[in-house]
Amino acid sequence: MRTPLAVRYAAARALTTGPADPAAPGPGQVELAPAYVGICDTDLHIFHGDMDARVKAPAVIGHEMSGRVVRVGPGVEGFAPGAPVTVMPLRWDGTCPACLRGHRHVCQNLDFLGIDSPGAMQQRWTVPAATLVRLPQSLPLDRAALVEPTAAAVHDVGRAGVRDGDRVVVVGAGPVGVLIAVVAQAAGGDVRVVEPNAHRRRLANRLGLRTWDPGAGDVPERVGDWTDDAGADVAFEVCGAEAGVQTAVDVLAVRGRLCLVAVHSQPRRVNLHRFFWRELTLIGARLYDREDFETAVRLVAEGTVPAEQLISRVVPIADALGAFQFLEAGHDLKVLVDCTDPSSEDVA
Amino acid sequence: MRTPLAVRYAAARALTTGPADPAAPGPGQVELAPAYVGICDTDLHIFHGDMDARVKAPAVIGHEMSGRVVRVGPGVEGFAPGAPVTVMPLRWDGTCPACLRGHRHVCQNLDFLGIDSPGAMQQRWTVPAATLVRLPQSLPLDRAALVEPTAAAVHDVGRAGVRDGDRVVVVGAGPVGVLIAVVAQAAGGDVRVVEPNAHRRRLANRLGLRTWDPGAGDVPERVGDWTDDAGADVAFEVCGAEAGVQTAVDVLAVRGRLCLVAVHSQPRRVNLHRFFWRELTLIGARLYDREDFETAVRLVAEGTVPAEQLISRVVPIADALGAFQFLEAGHDLKVLVDCTDPSSEDVA
Repeated sequence: MRTPLAVRYAAARALTTGPADPAAPGPGQVELAPAYVGICDTDLHIFHGDMDARVKAPAVIGHEMSGRVVRVGPGVEGFAPGAPVTVMPLRWDGTCPACLRGHRHVCQNLDFLGIDSPGAMQQRWTVPAATLVRLPQSLPLDRAALVEPTAAAVHDVGRAGVRDGDRVVVVGAGPVGVLIAVVAQAAGGDVRVVEPNAHRRRLANRLGLRTWDPGAGDVPERVGDWTDDAGADVAFEVCGAEAGVQTAVDVLAVRGRLCLVAVHSQPRRVNLHRFFWRELTLIGARLYDREDFETAVRLVAEGTVPAEQLISRVVPIADALGAFQFLEAGHDLKVLVDCTDPSSEDVA
Repeated sequence: MRTPLAVRYAAARALTTGPADPAAPGPGQVELAPAYVGICDTDLHIFHGDMDARVKAPAVIGHEMSGRVVRVGPGVEGFAPGAPVTVMPLRWDGTCPACLRGHRHVCQNLDFLGIDSPGAMQQRWTVPAATLVRLPQSLPLDRAALVEPTAAAVHDVGRAGVRDGDRVVVVGAGPVGVLIAVVAQAAGGDVRVVEPNAHRRRLANRLGLRTWDPGAGDVPERVGDWTDDAGADVAFEVCGAEAGVQTAVDVLAVRGRLCLVAVHSQPRRVNLHRFFWRELTLIGARLYDREDFETAVRLVAEGTVPAEQLISRVVPIADALGAFQFLEAGHDLKVLVDCTDPSSEDVA
């Protein structure tokens, strides 16, 4: 093949595309050929320079990926060259208090591949074999790039404990909100998605989701009508704004659960009295574990998560900058960077 | 006996003591002779006029009580005159969405005896038999007046899911905080109580509780030292101030639970990012159910809750105003109003 390429974050709004630094996989490592890499909000934050304190340029970013095994390092068994895989991009230290209590995915010294160490937006990527998650041969690799964000949604829905028949309100119809809505529906929830942006509502509607425009009527009142004044069993806060938190709190029934998914970089004013009065629960949810990934693979493979419809654009690696620009324009749900190398046959 | 007396809230800071309005118990009702009535923060709020929108003067208040059955109405069985009882002061409608889901204690149309309808601070009180909770004959009635606030603490500790070995931080050493600390200890928790007021710390220390002065050192740091940097498993917010919420959030370990007990009449700025990052849970807790009351009777009767030490003052019904004034001076943990009538022998 030609020299493998890598996309690197160089500075705010600047990416470079140049030769990757392929490393022979060491013990317990595997070298992959990433095929498709999705871009998420965190990647956009990095691109905007907002995470320069954490991401040291030049840095290969990207962590929503699919690809194939190229070669394995000493001691790695069970992954033949060409095997389709995705990566759960977490390395925990195993010794911190969170790890010792079994919550390794939120290790207090977590190494997140694609943020804290090199990521997937390159044509060769060496990762610990322990991060690999097998994909079915039948699953097209572009769709498989949605396994990682789906795993996050599976985790969120699990943390919220969505049960059959639950009335669920998702506040925010970005890619994360839409995936949560789809996964919550698959768990038996009756879901409404609140989103002020008409374009995003249309995209969600096309996926079969029912949406509400908060500008068209008071959302808690609407939830009251919908639920015979009971309120919703579950709300997901996925928009990141204080108003979204307020909506999520205001729609909940007695003993309702608010699952907090969005990143709120500032403290938010929260109606704690309602938490007391209605005995509400607020549940923080972050990342995923291996079981969430396995479930996500199944949901994407069986089509419960309509990955094909969610992918609105695929951009070649040589134009990764354009992919970021498309995404920040706000018209797309999911943009993928195509890292496949047509000249390569060894991992076809 | 002499004409039974009642203490009535007349206006802000004004109580009157006058004849009660004894009512022959109707079907399903029981007439009680209250013996001791505790005063809580809610009673103080009413006394200060802060709840005039809800409490229509003149109103008999009070809901932490012990007493004896005087006579029972038609259809009431199993309560002989003289039987020692306390009252779970809740009447639910049984038809609202909260009730239909089994959460009757937070009925959306709850009638709270002593706030929404006449309370216990009188020498005759007619209540639904369904509110009665039996007391052991051996339990002195003054101590039994602490069953109601203990039931609330039992409910809070249950909502927080305190387990054996949990490290627990209670923010606020008022009567509620102290009871939560005692009940959490009884559940196996290793408890620290954070309280800036030296007098309250001393009172808590006398009960065998370990207290921390937040002015003497950073509380989250201290919790870090105590827990090998893990953080606390559970925090109870019992102080009602924004700073208390912040402390409770900042001390928690990954997957820690914050049980919100205090009334926050204003929205509070909350570090939601930490809820996300550490996958924390915030749990609202309000009132109690019958099981909590049964547990509370046992804890008070067996002395796990040191009721005798918690009662710092007992004031005769004729001087109920003085009882409120003592309490608002802040030197007492629990002040009881003595409603017993020495001249009465029928329920001795």
